[in-house]
Amino acid sequence: MKLEELPTPSLLVDLDRMERNIAAMAATFADAGLALRPHVKTSKCWEVARRQLDAGAVGFTCSTPAEVAWLRGQGVADLLWAHAPVGPRKVEFAVSTARDGGLTVALDSLDAGRPLSDAAAAAGVTVPFLLEVNTGHARLGVDPDRAVATAAGLAALPGLALRGVMTHEGHVSLESDRGSLERAGAAAGALLVSVAEALRTAGHEAALVSVGSTPGVTSAPFAPGVTEGRPGTYVYFDANQTRLGSCTVDQCALTVLGTVLTVRDDGRVITDAGVKAMSSDTIGAIGSVGVVCDLDGVPLPGVTFFDGNEEHGFLLDDERRLSVGDLVRLVPNHACGTTNMWSHVVPVRDGAAVGEWSIAARH
Amino acid sequence: MKLEELPTPSLLVDLDRMERNIAAMAATFADAGLALRPHVKTSKCWEVARRQLDAGAVGFTCSTPAEVAWLRGQGVADLLWAHAPVGPRKVEFAVSTARDGGLTVALDSLDAGRPLSDAAAAAGVTVPFLLEVNTGHARLGVDPDRAVATAAGLAALPGLALRGVMTHEGHVSLESDRGSLERAGAAAGALLVSVAEALRTAGHEAALVSVGSTPGVTSAPFAPGVTEGRPGTYVYFDANQTRLGSCTVDQCALTVLGTVLTVRDDGRVITDAGVKAMSSDTIGAIGSVGVVCDLDGVPLPGVTFFDGNEEHGFLLDDERRLSVGDLVRLVPNHACGTTNMWSHVVPVRDGAAVGEWSIAARH
Repeated sequence: MKLEELPTPSLLVDLDRMERNIAAMAATFADAGLALRPHVKTSKCWEVARRQLDAGAVGFTCSTPAEVAWLRGQGVADLLWAHAPVGPRKVEFAVSTARDGGLTVALDSLDAGRPLSDAAAAAGVTVPFLLEVNTGHARLGVDPDRAVATAAGLAALPGLALRGVMTHEGHVSLESDRGSLERAGAAAGALLVSVAEALRTAGHEAALVSVGSTPGVTSAPFAPGVTEGRPGTYVYFDANQTRLGSCTVDQCALTVLGTVLTVRDDGRVITDAGVKAMSSDTIGAIGSVGVVCDLDGVPLPGVTFFDGNEEHGFLLDDERRLSVGDLVRLVPNHACGTTNMWSHVVPVRDGAAVGEWSIAARH
Repeated sequence: MKLEELPTPSLLVDLDRMERNIAAMAATFADAGLALRPHVKTSKCWEVARRQLDAGAVGFTCSTPAEVAWLRGQGVADLLWAHAPVGPRKVEFAVSTARDGGLTVALDSLDAGRPLSDAAAAAGVTVPFLLEVNTGHARLGVDPDRAVATAAGLAALPGLALRGVMTHEGHVSLESDRGSLERAGAAAGALLVSVAEALRTAGHEAALVSVGSTPGVTSAPFAPGVTEGRPGTYVYFDANQTRLGSCTVDQCALTVLGTVLTVRDDGRVITDAGVKAMSSDTIGAIGSVGVVCDLDGVPLPGVTFFDGNEEHGFLLDDERRLSVGDLVRLVPNHACGTTNMWSHVVPVRDGAAVGEWSIAARH
């Protein structure tokens, strides 16, 4: 089907670009002897995830019970639920899923571990976990100077089994240039390795040393002693990643197809792709909703996407090249946030839609 | 079911608050002899929409074909699709839906009107439309000084029937205080009425004079000559509307239930309700993701929701009142953007969940 026949807005994935992204990351990790455990949140799409497994991914990283349950249903054996299972519903889910094997969870405190331990012990199940460590992002994650004490406390609880350590080095995105970003990534990886070594010295198991982010994927996994990486966004890339130097625009595989609805005298153009199609992620921070491209996915010179309402995208067309009814392809700031707005994605090859893929596990 | 037994994050609607919001707006409009045509995008939920109809709404405002098709399927007779049907798929949808009556669309240019006219004439259908007028928001909408010429051009096209005028006075939200906001709303209403009168003077039909926004709902509909209002957010209200003076926090009916996952030494608290639960709408503008409340929906003093990642909400807890496992209810900045993140909403009465309602027409 030609792109002109699709409803707008529609979410498109360029298959050639996506396949190149998958192959390149798989080759880099294989060459380095590192395990690649992509974060599935970026696509939430089995057709994409299957290609990542075929290319050599060891399994997936998940954020939510819905992602875990969906991939278990697809038969994926090795899942890291990179979130602390706090609260009765998540504890119950973690224990019942871990019973069948293949699930590892994240913990960063005794307060989070005790209810899980109680439930696991009562069920006669052992739940494997990674100790999440704060290497600078200060989200979940124990601070390094408390890692050994926290690991000791958790390892002493029944029903829990320490497998290693993990971090999300999201703070590297705050660096002002790519060189600093790479150094921050390498430092995060090295810090996590030092925590793993401290745990081993204290007599704990720490076979898995796991880092994860797309901007950090060229640095953090290559700190000697890291065993796996968990990039997510790389499968599609996005406008934020181009700004961080993680990719170029012609590597961005995810776009939103929009139609020009009105053209104003001052060069403003309104499309039907607003923030309910693109997500409003990081609009405030960077002053743009995404990169405006033509139907071939090539950026349109002089056209910027400066703001959005719910169902209206505001473009500025300096050279007055767009008319009512024209189609544009819009590279989102944040691929993962954009996927989350949609139930389907349309695979595109050679400028034509070649199917429709379901987006799963939105909740 | 007790709130403690729900999964987190969950989307909750406080029934008492919502019912009060519906009744109050219906009474205000009835007293003024104005038609109330709520925008359905805020709830996308039949259980909510049905209550609005029962209270006297004449029909609904929709943004998308999915919203129109869903409400048609529910038997709602009178729908305004407040968007220009541009592009072959939307033209076809508008014509086929208008064939059965009850649908009015918006147009603001001859470029948008011609393909619709061609398709309607070919199908032997007349599509009723409102001329969308820019009263200051400069989104869709013809500028007032061109309204008569544009109306004349559109009315001359076969297959189209002008019913009146509409505007979205969204620019009133930019005013710095409530008094200025009310004056801007009244001015937008008066400007739209003057355009309707100019159309009538030129010999056109303009029975419907329709304004729409929640911040403007106390002013714009009451400009003499306006016939209907289209507020949407009022059914739930939200944190943005409290800042605009449209409501108080205790009128906000929509909250996200979250669990505390970790507590850091510096007072930061991480919950499992991030921007995939709350939406990231207007975070940049106001420096907050939402208002943090206790399980009764009462704001927690000293606790702010200052940022979010996808599945992580970052709170600052000045008085160290929150612990791992605690539940919080979070009033979103933007109710409509939040609804759009979810497939279900949980109705709550007297502190307990009393069902689960589907959210429809997300695309």
